[in-house]
Amino acid sequence: MDKLEQIKAQLQKFADDRDWDQFHSPKNLSMALSVEASELVECFQWLTEAQSQNLSPEQLSAVKDEMADVQIYLLRLATKLNVNMLEAVNQKIEKNALKYPADKVKGSAKKYNWYEQISEQDDSKS
Amino acid sequence: MDKLEQIKAQLQKFADDRDWDQFHSPKNLSMALSVEASELVECFQWLTEAQSQNLSPEQLSAVKDEMADVQIYLLRLATKLNVNMLEAVNQKIEKNALKYPADKVKGSAKKYNWYEQISEQDDSKS
Amino acid sequence: MDKLEQIKAQLQKFADDRDWDQFHSPKNLSMALSVEASELVECFQWLTEAQSQNLSPEQLSAVKDEMADVQIYLLRLATKLNVNMLEAVNQKIEKNALKYPADKVKGSAKKYNWYEQISEQDDSKS
Amino acid sequence: MDKLEQIKAQLQKFADDRDWDQFHSPKNLSMALSVEASELVECFQWLTEAQSQNLSPEQLSAVKDEMADVQIYLLRLATKLNVNMLEAVNQKIEKNALKYPADKVKGSAKKYNWYEQISEQDDSKS
Repeated sequence: MDKLEQIKAQLQKFADDRDWDQFHSPKNLSMALSVEASELVECFQWLTEAQSQNLSPEQLSAVKDEMADVQIYLLRLATKLNVNMLEAVNQKIEKNALKYPADKVKGSAKKYNWYEQISEQDDSKS
Repeated sequence: MDKLEQIKAQLQKFADDRDWDQFHSPKNLSMALSVEASELVECFQWLTEAQSQNLSPEQLSAVKDEMADVQIYLLRLATKLNVNMLEAVNQKIEKNALKYPADKVKGSAKKYNWYEQISEQDDSKS
Repeated sequence: MDKLEQIKAQLQKFADDRDWDQFHSPKNLSMALSVEASELVECFQWLTEAQSQNLSPEQLSAVKDEMADVQIYLLRLATKLNVNMLEAVNQKIEKNALKYPADKVKGSAKKYNWYEQISEQDDSKS
Repeated sequence: MDKLEQIKAQLQKFADDRDWDQFHSPKNLSMALSVEASELVECFQWLTEAQSQNLSPEQLSAVKDEMADVQIYLLRLATKLNVNMLEAVNQKIEKNALKYPADKVKGSAKKYNWYEQISEQDDSKS
């Protein structure tokens, strides 16, 4: 994907210009990404779900920055591991469709949790 | 960005087909995203940095799936908050370039940590 | 603290018996702890705040397990870094009392977020 | 456990004095806890495992504060859900001993990862 590849190249240059590539092992990048994901959670931790649907301009601006930070580290990791994000996403959407067939899981709130749970038990982590 | 917008539409349909949109408040989506970010960390938690650079095919496959999960929730959140991810990323890269001028931060490992820390103190969280 | 020290000793033996201490660098332990903290978040991600106040026995059992996992890794890290958790907690409660004087922050919901935010700006991360 | 119960009471008063209890649903507390766990990860993200074993006084001080924050939110959650942390930890240590019998898992690094993975597949998330 052109635009994403452009950004990945931009981010590699950004790191090289600062001699920061040495810190960008996949292990470290996964940590940095999770830290940004939590800074995103922090924007919402004391808000109700309803309030989270109605952010003020300042709140939305902060949320956007954290979302961008997550995206940036995800793209750095994709560069390091040679992962095509769009391909990976499409493959995962297919897997999810098989795991959660619409006709089986549609319905009450309860089923979503239940399906999440039984699927977690089947997930291969290797 | 065409491909990203396509995926966002696909993900919205996926949620609608299963009547899951009701759970997708920004607050909840931020939680789900952080959970996937941690499943990505989990792939690396007992590996050395060197091992993280040399993943087996099974390890890489698991990592790809978690990266895709993070990307998927990020795009769901972007849909809900009407955020253009590429725009947000470009704005953040600009901010980062100002915060970490290459000529100032290039050099020893120590400076990276030090700059991370003084920048954290200046970050506006609102 | 007797009981906590007993548990810390138990956990050290558990790791030694399995030759797992080699993986327990503070860096790795922080990762493992954050993973468990996210497994705790996962228990709540699709629940409303009200539902989270009324967990079923199975839900509560799962939550207890994740809380225990977080406590376990926190105690492992405390062992490795020679940190007295009760001392650290008491010091932090004092710091928090100074940062959030009751007479200043008591009142509307809005103030909590605002105080969280201005305090984040002052926090020294080093 | 006397000292822990004392701290839990102290933390409840702290929240009541500031009228903050309204924000302390278990859902929200799990989010706040995970945010602090990530602030702990952040202390280590650019350090090598070896560096994480040799923290400077300032680094150790920052780490202690984040560890305390995690402990504080864990105790708030324990109060809200009426969970006895020492009991929960002891039960989990027993479960772990059954899941990872020392004679089976002791040995090479590889086994630790492998056992982590097969155990994840068996874990009931409900």
